[in-house]
Amino acid sequence: MSELRRDPIGGRWVIVDTDHPHKPDQYDYERQVYMGGTCPFCYGNESMTPPEIEAIRDSHTTPNSSGWQVRVVANKFPALQVEGDIERRGIGMYDMSNGVGAHEVLIETPYHQKDICDLLNHEVENFLNMYCRRALDLAKDKRFKYIMVFKNFGAAAGASLEHPHTQIIALPMIPKSAAEEIKGAQNYFEYRERCIFCDVIRQETQEAERVVMENKHFLAFCPFVSRFPFEIWIIPKKHSGRFCYMPPEEIPSLAQILRDIVTKLKKLFPDVSYNYILHSAPVNGDGSMEGYHWHIEFMPKLTRTAGFELGSGFYLVATPPELAAKYLRDA
Amino acid sequence: MSELRRDPIGGRWVIVDTDHPHKPDQYDYERQVYMGGTCPFCYGNESMTPPEIEAIRDSHTTPNSSGWQVRVVANKFPALQVEGDIERRGIGMYDMSNGVGAHEVLIETPYHQKDICDLLNHEVENFLNMYCRRALDLAKDKRFKYIMVFKNFGAAAGASLEHPHTQIIALPMIPKSAAEEIKGAQNYFEYRERCIFCDVIRQETQEAERVVMENKHFLAFCPFVSRFPFEIWIIPKKHSGRFCYMPPEEIPSLAQILRDIVTKLKKLFPDVSYNYILHSAPVNGDGSMEGYHWHIEFMPKLTRTAGFELGSGFYLVATPPELAAKYLRDA
Repeated sequence: MSELRRDPIGGRWVIVDTDHPHKPDQYDYERQVYMGGTCPFCYGNESMTPPEIEAIRDSHTTPNSSGWQVRVVANKFPALQVEGDIERRGIGMYDMSNGVGAHEVLIETPYHQKDICDLLNHEVENFLNMYCRRALDLAKDKRFKYIMVFKNFGAAAGASLEHPHTQIIALPMIPKSAAEEIKGAQNYFEYRERCIFCDVIRQETQEAERVVMENKHFLAFCPFVSRFPFEIWIIPKKHSGRFCYMPPEEIPSLAQILRDIVTKLKKLFPDVSYNYILHSAPVNGDGSMEGYHWHIEFMPKLTRTAGFELGSGFYLVATPPELAAKYLRDA
Repeated sequence: MSELRRDPIGGRWVIVDTDHPHKPDQYDYERQVYMGGTCPFCYGNESMTPPEIEAIRDSHTTPNSSGWQVRVVANKFPALQVEGDIERRGIGMYDMSNGVGAHEVLIETPYHQKDICDLLNHEVENFLNMYCRRALDLAKDKRFKYIMVFKNFGAAAGASLEHPHTQIIALPMIPKSAAEEIKGAQNYFEYRERCIFCDVIRQETQEAERVVMENKHFLAFCPFVSRFPFEIWIIPKKHSGRFCYMPPEEIPSLAQILRDIVTKLKKLFPDVSYNYILHSAPVNGDGSMEGYHWHIEFMPKLTRTAGFELGSGFYLVATPPELAAKYLRDA
């Protein structure tokens, strides 16, 4: 029989198929293929993007030329624009605001066809470092309340360009899901005076069956209430609200675990597309984020269903996380 | 410049691209194709499905044979099972329940390749009638709190079988999104002593720019805070909390508007896949649903992005609903 499981943070119920669980080879997912063509994110095409905001590059090179390892530019088709003050207004019963915010693209590597698992550890560290640098820089702008860092890899996961990149969006408000997660964590903290994520880490480490891997600073596990098959959370073992304050010694740990997770996933699911999102506490807020704990939610794109889950908030997961973690450990 | 818009019911913000809005021909969506093969939902294959729960069929025919117009069977791979009591328990900090519920499949028509727009009005009325009959029947089971009726049409929208069908799931709890929508509506009702959906209908009718079409009993419009491009809501003009209590005279109105909406969408987007979900008040509840108003949320599957929106609750809409409604009106 299937199980209904309730997410202790957000209160969401999901149905987990424990009766006829899907094996990895039962997922008929869309494989990521490189189509080629001129790529604005490749060496030599720097002039095809908006000007460089920040980069890690060879010392003898100049901005907007080749010789970079990680490069950040404004999104050419930004969802939001940096200029102007935030003006909220109502139209009858509706509320709106002008689209003030930042929308940057972080090009992770000069190599068009190298996914995270194909990079060297220090190359992954470079772009993770840049995540922190950009977030710290954007947070200086007091208009912004939340910095969203997310990666779409592969067309099936919504990537419009195939060259590996991450998007960074600074928002003048806190997105709904983040606000709910923060509220859920805060409620728990007020009740128990403990961080709910720290308690999750404790229980997962103890039960072990959903753990995929761990290293000195990070734990990777398939959450008890996964919304997607083979969903993986990567979380720092030490309590910390914002990823951008990550101590420098933790970055190599995160690079290694992220690289290993992608390697394992691709062994089970060759050429799989995926999304990941950094969940972090808001910036420029009014105060205590004691109960929040930053983490990465990693979601391979194995199923095509979308509209229905999006519309209902109701999820069916065909592989229980306990089983997914076992497949991943063994991969 | 783009706009940030706030959903007055759920409090969600979306970014609407008013600056470079997408035209219909800029959506590179996956077209629905009929692959053929043996279909368990076609005439003559009735034995391939679990036994018939209910059907509309020619008077001289017997259950589980041909001669039906609409047929409801149990899902062969149910997400939930009807037998047993609900047993909730905790595992450490997590909560779970056994998977008690019902999962039915409603086969809308004997015609394998007829989408809603290809049916006659009375054929659409038949399956809408059956939606009500099944919901009324399932609501008799006091274990169930919510009845979810949704359709996935086309592989891109998550349909695993191409023969037109709707899924009906009866749940022992209220799904998160439904609960939030109900709570938002209830808060508004307590504050204003008016139904928020009735107020939306009033404002949309007055402003007219987001209205796609209307008839005697129903209004179809692109919501001010659409989460998906060309999202359409179909709502009864008269306040009513649950679709299953729809007066018989309203069914032909609903059939006509639903059929016309699909026709218009397919003119703009040939062979498009789509999802729709009936949003209705819970069943067997403790009381007042004065502030809730049932409706259908219709979402054509035009973009492939999914994981990111699912993970963040944050939406980018490339065609403003005002423009989408105009394209649909003109189609």
